[in-house]
Amino acid sequence: MTDHPRDLVALRRRLAEFAAARHWQPYHTPKNLAAALSVEASELLEIFQWLTPEQSVRVMTDPDAAHRVRDEVADVLAYLLQFCEVLDVDPLAALEAKIERNESRFPVPQGPEDRAPTS
Amino acid sequence: MTDHPRDLVALRRRLAEFAAARHWQPYHTPKNLAAALSVEASELLEIFQWLTPEQSVRVMTDPDAAHRVRDEVADVLAYLLQFCEVLDVDPLAALEAKIERNESRFPVPQGPEDRAPTS
Amino acid sequence: MTDHPRDLVALRRRLAEFAAARHWQPYHTPKNLAAALSVEASELLEIFQWLTPEQSVRVMTDPDAAHRVRDEVADVLAYLLQFCEVLDVDPLAALEAKIERNESRFPVPQGPEDRAPTS
Amino acid sequence: MTDHPRDLVALRRRLAEFAAARHWQPYHTPKNLAAALSVEASELLEIFQWLTPEQSVRVMTDPDAAHRVRDEVADVLAYLLQFCEVLDVDPLAALEAKIERNESRFPVPQGPEDRAPTS
Repeated sequence: MTDHPRDLVALRRRLAEFAAARHWQPYHTPKNLAAALSVEASELLEIFQWLTPEQSVRVMTDPDAAHRVRDEVADVLAYLLQFCEVLDVDPLAALEAKIERNESRFPVPQGPEDRAPTS
Repeated sequence: MTDHPRDLVALRRRLAEFAAARHWQPYHTPKNLAAALSVEASELLEIFQWLTPEQSVRVMTDPDAAHRVRDEVADVLAYLLQFCEVLDVDPLAALEAKIERNESRFPVPQGPEDRAPTS
Repeated sequence: MTDHPRDLVALRRRLAEFAAARHWQPYHTPKNLAAALSVEASELLEIFQWLTPEQSVRVMTDPDAAHRVRDEVADVLAYLLQFCEVLDVDPLAALEAKIERNESRFPVPQGPEDRAPTS
Repeated sequence: MTDHPRDLVALRRRLAEFAAARHWQPYHTPKNLAAALSVEASELLEIFQWLTPEQSVRVMTDPDAAHRVRDEVADVLAYLLQFCEVLDVDPLAALEAKIERNESRFPVPQGPEDRAPTS
């Protein structure tokens, strides 16, 4: 049990206090945080690099792999929030705006289609 | 003004509905979503790759760059949430657990230290 | 037909001359080149992110995809060579030394094993 | 001293034999090798993520960091060559073609310009 509220804003503030208490702000330029975010996303990918699609679906049944997955998800989210903190970006507003743009760009197919997502 | 609640759970549900309506679930294996997350994190880094640290701090003063930054933040968060959805990972709980581990691993320095963060 | 010798040393020299003629050296710090290399490697991965393993084997049968693959391979190799140039690293010697270490680390299995590579 | 010729073609053949002797070919789909290449490029970037541009220039003066740099360069080149092997791509020809396209796309500036490279 924790006395910390578990929401994005609260976690962002805890991360900022964590970095400030350790004098890490000089390292936390937007460029360095973007690099660190991309490094952590690759560490998440590394868990899956030799797995078949089917094995990747079952990854959480192995306790060690499940722990690594949660740990790398935490690192990706931590650097994403710290990046957003230093540039004053609201990630939820950014995502909501993007979903709305994508709902126009990719209308729901009317027929029985099955097409790959676009990137 | 939007009639959608703007929180992580609600955005995660909208993303799941968005993918389901377009029949994208077969593509959304954990492995593919981890790859897509890492590709999007690199697209965020690409904005910064030739900037000095000082230029990176001012990136949001250029409207085009600011738009790209928000767009890539949205993509990273979207794939992170979709990854968490297919593996039933709670990203906020994962981050909270990680912060608690890190508070033990990296105690607050008592002296006037200035050390680089560890990865 | 070209009058340039096609070997790694010659291509490395052409890349250095190319950058020098355009006054790009100030941007070519080791850190920036490592970031650019990682961005290009992700662009190569992007081509494959939604493909099944079987589709990925046939990627070169699509002329557009084949062109993109060759283009991204060229970009990865270009930044790798430029990175090696600024830090005076010999990539062939580094790879040879690594293969020799790996031949000790991963002895050839004597039985009918089929294990995943390690990273 | 080694009795192996140190050129790209020879190293590519040694890598192929190394993987075949260990029965790793089933894992070496183009998609998996592209993922592994991008993971290794991120590991190279990780060495630089908290360094200033100036510190990054001096990275080889620290023997441990210099060893890590050479090791990650070897891994990037190894996966690039293995990727090229499975798709029958000639990386030197691809790079030469790319340099020729870039010499047209980015003519040498006639004035005292100093512009950032494009990606």
